Amino acid sequence: MGSVKKVAILGSTGSIGRQALDVIRTRPDELEVVALTGNKNLTLLKSQINEFRPKMFYAPGNPEISYNGEFLSVEEIASHPEVDFVIVSTAGKAGLSPTLAALQAGKTVALANKEVLVMAGEIIVREVSHNRARILPIDSEHSAIWQCLRGEDNKPRRLFLTASGGPFYRFPQAQLAGITPEQTLRHPVWKMGRKVTIDSATLMNKGLEVIEAHWLFSFPFDSIEILIHPQSIVHSMVEFTDGSLKAQLSSPDMRVPIQYALSYPQRWSNSELPRLDWSKIDSLNFEPVDYARFPCLKAAIDAGRSGGTYPAVLCAADEVAVELFLSHRISFTDIASIVESTLEQHQNIAQPSLEDIVVADEWARECAAELSVDYCKETERIGSTEIDI
Amino acid sequence: MGSVKKVAILGSTGSIGRQALDVIRTRPDELEVVALTGNKNLTLLKSQINEFRPKMFYAPGNPEISYNGEFLSVEEIASHPEVDFVIVSTAGKAGLSPTLAALQAGKTVALANKEVLVMAGEIIVREVSHNRARILPIDSEHSAIWQCLRGEDNKPRRLFLTASGGPFYRFPQAQLAGITPEQTLRHPVWKMGRKVTIDSATLMNKGLEVIEAHWLFSFPFDSIEILIHPQSIVHSMVEFTDGSLKAQLSSPDMRVPIQYALSYPQRWSNSELPRLDWSKIDSLNFEPVDYARFPCLKAAIDAGRSGGTYPAVLCAADEVAVELFLSHRISFTDIASIVESTLEQHQNIAQPSLEDIVVADEWARECAAELSVDYCKETERIGSTEIDI
Repeated sequence: MGSVKKVAILGSTGSIGRQALDVIRTRPDELEVVALTGNKNLTLLKSQINEFRPKMFYAPGNPEISYNGEFLSVEEIASHPEVDFVIVSTAGKAGLSPTLAALQAGKTVALANKEVLVMAGEIIVREVSHNRARILPIDSEHSAIWQCLRGEDNKPRRLFLTASGGPFYRFPQAQLAGITPEQTLRHPVWKMGRKVTIDSATLMNKGLEVIEAHWLFSFPFDSIEILIHPQSIVHSMVEFTDGSLKAQLSSPDMRVPIQYALSYPQRWSNSELPRLDWSKIDSLNFEPVDYARFPCLKAAIDAGRSGGTYPAVLCAADEVAVELFLSHRISFTDIASIVESTLEQHQNIAQPSLEDIVVADEWARECAAELSVDYCKETERIGSTEIDI
Repeated sequence: MGSVKKVAILGSTGSIGRQALDVIRTRPDELEVVALTGNKNLTLLKSQINEFRPKMFYAPGNPEISYNGEFLSVEEIASHPEVDFVIVSTAGKAGLSPTLAALQAGKTVALANKEVLVMAGEIIVREVSHNRARILPIDSEHSAIWQCLRGEDNKPRRLFLTASGGPFYRFPQAQLAGITPEQTLRHPVWKMGRKVTIDSATLMNKGLEVIEAHWLFSFPFDSIEILIHPQSIVHSMVEFTDGSLKAQLSSPDMRVPIQYALSYPQRWSNSELPRLDWSKIDSLNFEPVDYARFPCLKAAIDAGRSGGTYPAVLCAADEVAVELFLSHRISFTDIASIVESTLEQHQNIAQPSLEDIVVADEWARECAAELSVDYCKETERIGSTEIDI
């Protein structure tokens, strides 16, 4: 191909950002880091800037960085003419505005941030088509579906998103309320950030992925199904109209889907990426998900179906509730209750503008915080505080 | 698409031929049967001709058929201007000459006959390229690989052919010699002809498929691996250079790959084709194959690697040995011994002509028959004769 892809990483100090840099290190002839942005971890950001010497960077408050690259806002970076390819690996709603800036500038956006499509799927899809921009998924499940759809001419019949089930899939229902943040952060398979790990345990994460899949592949909710697959080797499957399915498999390592987005339409040989060893894989198990056990999952899918500002409210309420759980203020099962109650109190706005979404997000945060007062036990911390991860 | 595909089925009364007609019945606007050929089952052939009214037909000896379609040789049919698409579902070496005729006439050939590519892979591949013809696989494993490679730009790293393992995969080694044809014909998953069912039990079938995959996908033998997968739901897998794999799954029903070849590049909705029910699939198991237990598999792969006339000798010796086993003249384990001894005695011809292959085939049949005298026990039938299938 010859030409070098000029990559901006928004959120380069997070888990996905760091793994993206791992991949980029192996491909100096094909990939050039032209911009990095960080948030809280300034030490790591400085070290990344020193290593990759990007033309542009951003960190909150324009901190002292002994480097003469250009300091720009995240939105300026995302839409900069020097950038070809924007990796959005920021967490939460922070990704929304730079993603829109990148799409309006016609960039290719590799999206690891779930909230962007969940909160504003309709707007995002419209901007992609208006500006001939492109969204490539980085989530392992959506990357799997994208890979399985590659080269196919016909719309499939069903999408199967796989879910590891998280650490509590077989936990006795009665004991769910007593689960601590520390137990929850021990995810059996994937290494992820704290918020995503809690969302994996409640299956909220899988619900957000269903909404994402709906927008990414213009696919109806009724045809997106979830299969519990504890080994996390089959990352998702597509069933075609002829009864044939395709599945994508790999070791559970985010560098595989990250590299696929970066290399697409090529696939690159990379000796650092793990290979599946079939002498060690005895069986792959699957079972339909039990929605009754995971109210967050059901709440997410219902919010997705209802559309409008509901999904933004869902995300905001979940963020508030997960934060309270992580700080031992509410119990594990309170997360779903707070999310559900917030959604119940919401007045939906159909076909919302970006402004409507921002307002709904703020409303939901306040509402969830107020509701949570009933759950919070100010004087006692919930669960154990020991951390042995 | 509008245009009707004009299909000739060579061997329409066999298992694949009948299932191809099942698919064709569901698509009268897209598919037209213009030719049928049969061999032994004249009653069924007549009934198929009455139903589909093909322009052309063939049966050995031009038997009385009260129908005024044109009687032509199989080769004339395969290369006839009225034919677009030739399904080669004849058994054994009978498919070779009509396949070549079809390719030389630039047809699209859907190949269910393994021996064609095994015996004459080099010649077949050359004819495909010289005549801009096309070979589409119908075997479930090769169809799976073809589906997984769809739309991919880069050559994969490895192909994994799955194998059910047949009925004796966990049978005690010492008892293999006492296995009867009747036991062998009870294949746990697939419904197939007698020869193929025995070849599945010896894993000869899988060895032939490795050779086929080598030619179909121009893939080196060292990168084609076999995984035992008892459920026969994952039909094969492709591993790409980035560590990602794609698998194709479906219920074990040959109509799925047959329809895929017929509908390609489309996929057709067909309510008669089975759908996988994930509430009934608990686990998918995989293990590397144990070559030591299956000498036919090793003999086949060695013959494929050596090339020349060895694969033709392999097929011929196996056909003789399987026939002797089916008529209770030799034991199950004698099949491999006869095949191996015949290969040992063969003087290979590299880059053989079609004539060389035909001569090698005849030599191997005589050689295997002579060798088998030592194994045959004229006065006693081997194994039980009761059939309770």
